Amino acid sequence: MELLSETKMMPGQVLARGVCRHLASHGFAVIEEFVPDRGLRVDVMALGPKGELWVVECKSSRADFTSDAKWQGYLDWCDRYFWAVDAAFPTELLPDGTGLILADGYDAEILRMAPEDKLAAPRRAKLTRKFAAHAARRLQALRDPEAGLSGWG
Amino acid sequence: MELLSETKMMPGQVLARGVCRHLASHGFAVIEEFVPDRGLRVDVMALGPKGELWVVECKSSRADFTSDAKWQGYLDWCDRYFWAVDAAFPTELLPDGTGLILADGYDAEILRMAPEDKLAAPRRAKLTRKFAAHAARRLQALRDPEAGLSGWG
Repeated sequence: MELLSETKMMPGQVLARGVCRHLASHGFAVIEEFVPDRGLRVDVMALGPKGELWVVECKSSRADFTSDAKWQGYLDWCDRYFWAVDAAFPTELLPDGTGLILADGYDAEILRMAPEDKLAAPRRAKLTRKFAAHAARRLQALRDPEAGLSGWG
Repeated sequence: MELLSETKMMPGQVLARGVCRHLASHGFAVIEEFVPDRGLRVDVMALGPKGELWVVECKSSRADFTSDAKWQGYLDWCDRYFWAVDAAFPTELLPDGTGLILADGYDAEILRMAPEDKLAAPRRAKLTRKFAAHAARRLQALRDPEAGLSGWG
């Protein structure tokens, strides 16, 4: 895993950085490219001060959105689900019943709060543990590159 | 927070690095200098594949051990409690009922498994969430230094 450098970032990753900064400023802990379950990978998973789990998918263009056949599968892995898009995105494409975040590479703003659909307690516990392991392994791989963990998480 | 560089590390941090490498090789996610509760700071907190939480305190010398008046307070914040020491440490000083890990800066080995005293479920959930937030915030601060999070966690 590499440190973030805007010149190498994909458009969706630029949005994710702004989303993460904004959520962090509200007391959320955030990780990117989290795998809640086999075959699924969400752009941003955020853990709130009360243990709430939010998923944010970042879409940089109409094509990026319309080619995503998996997003409904993410709804079962969070308490609230959001899209993050930039100011040029045609937001009328986005389905009802989801949250909306306006983002750029530097910050973001929640335009529409997502409805809450609370995780069951066992899944919340498992997801939180997975979040913890993912973040700690990536952190260790960065802090101690010689540990040979770079393939993890 | 800085990346690990042995020349700047304290003796206890060198041991912690070896401990973390060893535990990671057994599927644990690890963080250093974790604060389970106000006024407490453990050297290594490890989260196991089944959600188990282990605390490892690293002692580089007799003086380092005898000056620690807080360790018994850590017992309430883990399922198992270990000391990590180097080969020169007088292990007869260490109290019964604790685990023992022999470590250097590169690896470690569990010499004596710590007895298990399982956390109650609510405390486990809270600690796991805190572990997750700590790791994610440190990771974000490293990956995105301009986010201004370096004071966190």
